[in-house]
Amino acid sequence: MQLGFVSAILPELSLEEVASLAAALGYGCVEVMCWPQGQAERRYAGVTHIDAARLSKEEAARINELMLTEEVQISGLGYYPNPLAPDAGEARIYVEHIKAVIRAAALLGVGVVNTFIGRDWTRSLDENWPRFLATWRPLVGYAADHGVKIAIENCPMLFTRDEWPGGKNLARNPAIWRRMFDEIPSPNFGLNYDPSHLVWQQMDYVAPLDEFKERIFHVHAKDARIDRLKLDQVGILAYPNEYHTPKLPGLGDVNWGRFFGALTDIGYQGPVCVEVEDRAFEGNLALRRRALAQSRVFLHQYV
Amino acid sequence: MQLGFVSAILPELSLEEVASLAAALGYGCVEVMCWPQGQAERRYAGVTHIDAARLSKEEAARINELMLTEEVQISGLGYYPNPLAPDAGEARIYVEHIKAVIRAAALLGVGVVNTFIGRDWTRSLDENWPRFLATWRPLVGYAADHGVKIAIENCPMLFTRDEWPGGKNLARNPAIWRRMFDEIPSPNFGLNYDPSHLVWQQMDYVAPLDEFKERIFHVHAKDARIDRLKLDQVGILAYPNEYHTPKLPGLGDVNWGRFFGALTDIGYQGPVCVEVEDRAFEGNLALRRRALAQSRVFLHQYV
Amino acid sequence: MQLGFVSAILPELSLEEVASLAAALGYGCVEVMCWPQGQAERRYAGVTHIDAARLSKEEAARINELMLTEEVQISGLGYYPNPLAPDAGEARIYVEHIKAVIRAAALLGVGVVNTFIGRDWTRSLDENWPRFLATWRPLVGYAADHGVKIAIENCPMLFTRDEWPGGKNLARNPAIWRRMFDEIPSPNFGLNYDPSHLVWQQMDYVAPLDEFKERIFHVHAKDARIDRLKLDQVGILAYPNEYHTPKLPGLGDVNWGRFFGALTDIGYQGPVCVEVEDRAFEGNLALRRRALAQSRVFLHQYV
Amino acid sequence: MQLGFVSAILPELSLEEVASLAAALGYGCVEVMCWPQGQAERRYAGVTHIDAARLSKEEAARINELMLTEEVQISGLGYYPNPLAPDAGEARIYVEHIKAVIRAAALLGVGVVNTFIGRDWTRSLDENWPRFLATWRPLVGYAADHGVKIAIENCPMLFTRDEWPGGKNLARNPAIWRRMFDEIPSPNFGLNYDPSHLVWQQMDYVAPLDEFKERIFHVHAKDARIDRLKLDQVGILAYPNEYHTPKLPGLGDVNWGRFFGALTDIGYQGPVCVEVEDRAFEGNLALRRRALAQSRVFLHQYV
Amino acid sequence: MQLGFVSAILPELSLEEVASLAAALGYGCVEVMCWPQGQAERRYAGVTHIDAARLSKEEAARINELMLTEEVQISGLGYYPNPLAPDAGEARIYVEHIKAVIRAAALLGVGVVNTFIGRDWTRSLDENWPRFLATWRPLVGYAADHGVKIAIENCPMLFTRDEWPGGKNLARNPAIWRRMFDEIPSPNFGLNYDPSHLVWQQMDYVAPLDEFKERIFHVHAKDARIDRLKLDQVGILAYPNEYHTPKLPGLGDVNWGRFFGALTDIGYQGPVCVEVEDRAFEGNLALRRRALAQSRVFLHQYV
Amino acid sequence: MQLGFVSAILPELSLEEVASLAAALGYGCVEVMCWPQGQAERRYAGVTHIDAARLSKEEAARINELMLTEEVQISGLGYYPNPLAPDAGEARIYVEHIKAVIRAAALLGVGVVNTFIGRDWTRSLDENWPRFLATWRPLVGYAADHGVKIAIENCPMLFTRDEWPGGKNLARNPAIWRRMFDEIPSPNFGLNYDPSHLVWQQMDYVAPLDEFKERIFHVHAKDARIDRLKLDQVGILAYPNEYHTPKLPGLGDVNWGRFFGALTDIGYQGPVCVEVEDRAFEGNLALRRRALAQSRVFLHQYV
Repeated sequence: MQLGFVSAILPELSLEEVASLAAALGYGCVEVMCWPQGQAERRYAGVTHIDAARLSKEEAARINELMLTEEVQISGLGYYPNPLAPDAGEARIYVEHIKAVIRAAALLGVGVVNTFIGRDWTRSLDENWPRFLATWRPLVGYAADHGVKIAIENCPMLFTRDEWPGGKNLARNPAIWRRMFDEIPSPNFGLNYDPSHLVWQQMDYVAPLDEFKERIFHVHAKDARIDRLKLDQVGILAYPNEYHTPKLPGLGDVNWGRFFGALTDIGYQGPVCVEVEDRAFEGNLALRRRALAQSRVFLHQYV
Repeated sequence: MQLGFVSAILPELSLEEVASLAAALGYGCVEVMCWPQGQAERRYAGVTHIDAARLSKEEAARINELMLTEEVQISGLGYYPNPLAPDAGEARIYVEHIKAVIRAAALLGVGVVNTFIGRDWTRSLDENWPRFLATWRPLVGYAADHGVKIAIENCPMLFTRDEWPGGKNLARNPAIWRRMFDEIPSPNFGLNYDPSHLVWQQMDYVAPLDEFKERIFHVHAKDARIDRLKLDQVGILAYPNEYHTPKLPGLGDVNWGRFFGALTDIGYQGPVCVEVEDRAFEGNLALRRRALAQSRVFLHQYV
Repeated sequence: MQLGFVSAILPELSLEEVASLAAALGYGCVEVMCWPQGQAERRYAGVTHIDAARLSKEEAARINELMLTEEVQISGLGYYPNPLAPDAGEARIYVEHIKAVIRAAALLGVGVVNTFIGRDWTRSLDENWPRFLATWRPLVGYAADHGVKIAIENCPMLFTRDEWPGGKNLARNPAIWRRMFDEIPSPNFGLNYDPSHLVWQQMDYVAPLDEFKERIFHVHAKDARIDRLKLDQVGILAYPNEYHTPKLPGLGDVNWGRFFGALTDIGYQGPVCVEVEDRAFEGNLALRRRALAQSRVFLHQYV
Repeated sequence: MQLGFVSAILPELSLEEVASLAAALGYGCVEVMCWPQGQAERRYAGVTHIDAARLSKEEAARINELMLTEEVQISGLGYYPNPLAPDAGEARIYVEHIKAVIRAAALLGVGVVNTFIGRDWTRSLDENWPRFLATWRPLVGYAADHGVKIAIENCPMLFTRDEWPGGKNLARNPAIWRRMFDEIPSPNFGLNYDPSHLVWQQMDYVAPLDEFKERIFHVHAKDARIDRLKLDQVGILAYPNEYHTPKLPGLGDVNWGRFFGALTDIGYQGPVCVEVEDRAFEGNLALRRRALAQSRVFLHQYV
Repeated sequence: MQLGFVSAILPELSLEEVASLAAALGYGCVEVMCWPQGQAERRYAGVTHIDAARLSKEEAARINELMLTEEVQISGLGYYPNPLAPDAGEARIYVEHIKAVIRAAALLGVGVVNTFIGRDWTRSLDENWPRFLATWRPLVGYAADHGVKIAIENCPMLFTRDEWPGGKNLARNPAIWRRMFDEIPSPNFGLNYDPSHLVWQQMDYVAPLDEFKERIFHVHAKDARIDRLKLDQVGILAYPNEYHTPKLPGLGDVNWGRFFGALTDIGYQGPVCVEVEDRAFEGNLALRRRALAQSRVFLHQYV
Repeated sequence: MQLGFVSAILPELSLEEVASLAAALGYGCVEVMCWPQGQAERRYAGVTHIDAARLSKEEAARINELMLTEEVQISGLGYYPNPLAPDAGEARIYVEHIKAVIRAAALLGVGVVNTFIGRDWTRSLDENWPRFLATWRPLVGYAADHGVKIAIENCPMLFTRDEWPGGKNLARNPAIWRRMFDEIPSPNFGLNYDPSHLVWQQMDYVAPLDEFKERIFHVHAKDARIDRLKLDQVGILAYPNEYHTPKLPGLGDVNWGRFFGALTDIGYQGPVCVEVEDRAFEGNLALRRRALAQSRVFLHQYV
């Protein structure tokens, strides 16, 4: 496994600076954010370290050389919109940019694009399903045609009133993954597995690794803490942010030893990228660098 | 405390038969269902053991005499509609019938009416709040004027797609109870406390008893089992019935010893009514009688 | 469900006395022991309340009348030898008597014969398998021909050096049950489910109920306690009796509420027979009667 | 085992009434309080159902006849003073009355006197030890001479500021019991074992039964609940009543199934007396009767 | 946060050597011990790395320069006597030296003085309270006048017979902290928070962080292990050292990930100083250096 | 303590290369494998980094110099055959080679030889005992005569059908260790303590350290994970590899903080050698180096 981080936490740095920081902190790879230029719709979104839509062969070569110099790999390209947004026009724009990111990945020789299935959060899972198939069958095919794998992060994208009730990403649990991969069985369709989202959904985050071992293309290292005293006040039907807090790896409830133990057992050899979404470390660039440095030290004992 | 049961589980019996069965099984009280005649909109609803809308003084006297004969008290009148239903006309009908049940309680000398706050389940808690106040301030006042207490059951009324996402009753957790009683502080406004709903919301069901001891007018004895293996597949964002099962007292996860221990510590002296919503015991009248008999044996060790 | 008990604990009583005691203590059924006359090879074995080998139609009628008088049913006939004993001659005798018990059940109109698969305890599971098939395919067929179901108790029959290493009954866990029913799929082949044996094997004793619901023909109510301090000295590789103790229902580690809750969910309607193998209650007949009386009180809260 | 109760909870009843109530509720024995007439120094003390100091042979015969009529045995005589009280004169009075109770037991043919070791609560265990030996060596000898066993209850007698810091009874844990019985090895010196006191001391209340099986002469059935939320505020160094509450059997943290299971394993055949010290049931005689009735129902499932 | 250590563990080193060792091991700060010269009354006391009573402006400047050279900060000055000692004269000496340490802190520009409230351990909390107020109102005022914060360590100072029963420091739990800060609400009065003392008091050591976030001026990193088997022998009323052992961070029961996670959530940015009181590492200077080195490696994964 | 590793995982490297790798990874010692040349009977066996049978004084001097150069110590010589193998001739060969390894240790000045007691796995513990005594009394004496200690690893050597039922090493639990050291009380006879084997035997792996502190000559750092879902299928009577997996330190169920905490409390100062038997890291030399590197980082936080 290679330790890396998700570049979204460093919006003020250029790709060069991101790679250089990764190297300095001892990371071997980076998941590079590829949001469209100019867009910044929500927290952790809108970062553009590679401008996928305008990426030329030359620029791709330059980037690869730059990464080679720093001895830091690109673990995947990341773009996490809601391709099943209720507004069909908006969804279409997202789908188009996903295609651009796929093409960019192909140009760069990066094998994985990380993203979300999306969801019309006002509607049920079953009501979303036909649209999921209509959108993703061609998208997965497009990726396969370009030799790129799609890794869907298992985040429910449900935090507060803004994403209530359904969240903005269908792919939140093993029952749904099974259904996804049954109906779109392409080997280019898989998961960007993040244990922290299973923690606060009160699920076993180790057991699914074995069943889905062929589908795990990328791993996010994020932690989460459930606050029992808060949960006792509001219960699991409250907005998730009322009772849980995303944290750096090691500062939450994930048992990382068991998690990495199981990852090794399924033969996972891919990237494990720290995703910093811990608000205690977001105040300024120094804090975010510290978050990356500390996470590297913590995870290094298991990888 | 007096052990009783909720009459909803015996739709085919008359009030006389219900009282007689209660006496035979050793119960000291019954919560009598007062749905409007002819209506049966959902499971466990639509049962009319007292026709509140048409209750005369004479009929009330007859009922009281009948109960006296059987030495079975009426613990409360029960009617659980959704008075905040999205359709204003529908909600108005519910409110009117709640008033009828209040009047019936006053006629019968029964001190408590058990019901739901209701909720427009398509909207958030905050969006429901103004309507909650507009509906319930006058209703609680009406009850107070009749010397009757309103006991709101703490059921989220969220089981499947039908009630998704918000459920049909706001009063589901201590944070909301606090807000309810802060804004409508009438001593005639309280709770019909059912621990099972807190179990599957993953909340402490014992601790709130002390804080809300002045507000607990009635208690439901129902149990619930969380199925870990199912929860591991779907997580807490799934429809609640995908990972939990309502059960008879003693067949689920409630620690009844601790629960009754805490009830005695707060000096609760009121009714504790078994609410049979365990599908394993709903097949026929014999099974439902058996459910009541068994629950009586189980609870008697604590009461 | 009907509460009953296994008659093996009352060797000095006649069937009449057994039935009469069952009635007096409030039991609705009895599993009647049918060991061959004169044989008493090990603790809890060798009791003959019905002499299956010599049972005539008249005697069967007399027995049925007697049970009817006491309003106590025969839940099943019980005979628990080792039909895969290493000594082929010995095994043959067991198989012949199992057939006799099947014929007796047919004569009596009792639907279930409870027994063990058996095992050559000196050999591995796989080494036993061909013989299991050779012995049990015809036996299950024989039972089916007589309209009788075979219910295999899930006891490992491994306690001390005497049964070490393999125990005298193959049918000890869900993986083996699956294999048994895959290879002998007859609807007349099932389980006599005893949760206590799963407790000390450190297994979930509730989860298998759902998968095997069609196979559960009979239930034993026995409890077991694991002694952590003893286990810390010898570990799970020790003889099981070094770290666990069979106990009356309620005096061990089984969570009976969850167990009966799950039994009701799968729609189990059959017998639940107390099996007294608690040495603290074996000293004399009075103690054994007390064990049955107390177990009845304990289980009655759940059934 | 025989279920009974401690008569201290019924100060307004005569011994006849106590015995009659015991019989009516299904109890087989009573621990009869023998405080000196007129004295009532603290909660649960000062009750005199038998006036030990003035007991004549005739009165003893009358009492035994009365108990025989009700078919209720005297499990032991109870008197729980502080024979190591700092004031030597006070302590002497206690010791003298313990002797009177021993003589009364002998007269009545009751084998056990239940009491406390006592403690100068202002001094450490070691500082108390010489006085313990000086007081109790002769007392145990006196009991032995009268054919009576002394059963020391394992209550720390530490609840609030009044008994702080050391409590008024040394015999609170297995380490001290071992020391007691090593230095006063008389077979007439043993324990009145109450699991609830071990619960709030955060100790295993089952494991010691085996080691001390020869010393357990009497058992108290009392429960206790630890309130985690309160403990989180004050910690174990606070007065015990700040974080724990004595409760009726079944309404606290004792696992009674495991406790009775272990009692049966050590062959304990003696009395198990409910000690009602649950303030929720002390308001009036009716509540206290109810406490006894309910405790009988609860414990009957295990005895 | 800055990792540091408490200098008390290095009595044979000069301040220069302490600072140099800190730098060599990667620590960013040191809590410097300021006991009066010559005094060494108990384990971990009596160390004088800065002679507060005689500190001149020049010496202060020299010290600051020295620390600057090593790039090691002084996290606070430490002096932990019992300013509420029963002997008034003794207490007065302690108070005077606390004032000297406050003046020294002001001279050095160090913002925090770490100490104990103290306690007359022979008397109850309430009996100590008036003296607490009389002593600490002026002391806190004195500190405020010098621009220095007082950080009270939450150690109960109760280990063996020597400090029994009350311990030598009142400030042991949140209930008492609340009372302290209610009655002396100065912003210069706060806590030197050590989670290990809450561990063995069986309390939640994470939850209080949020409520007291404005009061946490300094943090000690010490661990503690509760030995269940020992506790089962003696219970929580025994001397604390009979059932618990202070340990280096990571070798005990503190969940450091959760602890640091919560510290980051409250925005704590101050020092975290390892306090070595693990007897396994006290044998010689080499072992103590090793303890500091190992603790630095352990804590670095979280800070 | 010194961190080291067992050289068995590096069969393709020479002793020089092993020592050099140890130094490069920061290890201070190595347990050197001394299987006879040419033999490789089972996984992890058959590695010869020192040819004990042919070791000359000169070669020993050369080895010691080599180790000195790398600043890596030899923690012990390792050879783990089955000296109680059913075949007496085979067993004799093992015993002879153990003697050779003892002589080699003496020549090298290495104080410890690590090995197994062995077992005739087809027979019970008691049946093996006479042979254990007959074999090991002289062997331990031989070691003592050479100034070498024998450290028996506590591995049950029971994984699959191959070692079923008894395993190939008697020394698997504290009860057996007690018996071993009672009957062969030589101070040269002790343990090579590996906590992982106690984990899957469901035993406390911390508590025995204190009782056996004089006997712990060497420690193996290996971890193990119990898979609850697998155990629920097969139970503890299955072959151990059906429900547990050996893992690198930190990737399993051992609580290393508590383990090392207890090791420090008993004053253990010896070697702690990583034993890599994690199949996820056995594919090639690079993976095995990685395993050693990662384990060093993990353990360094505790040592």
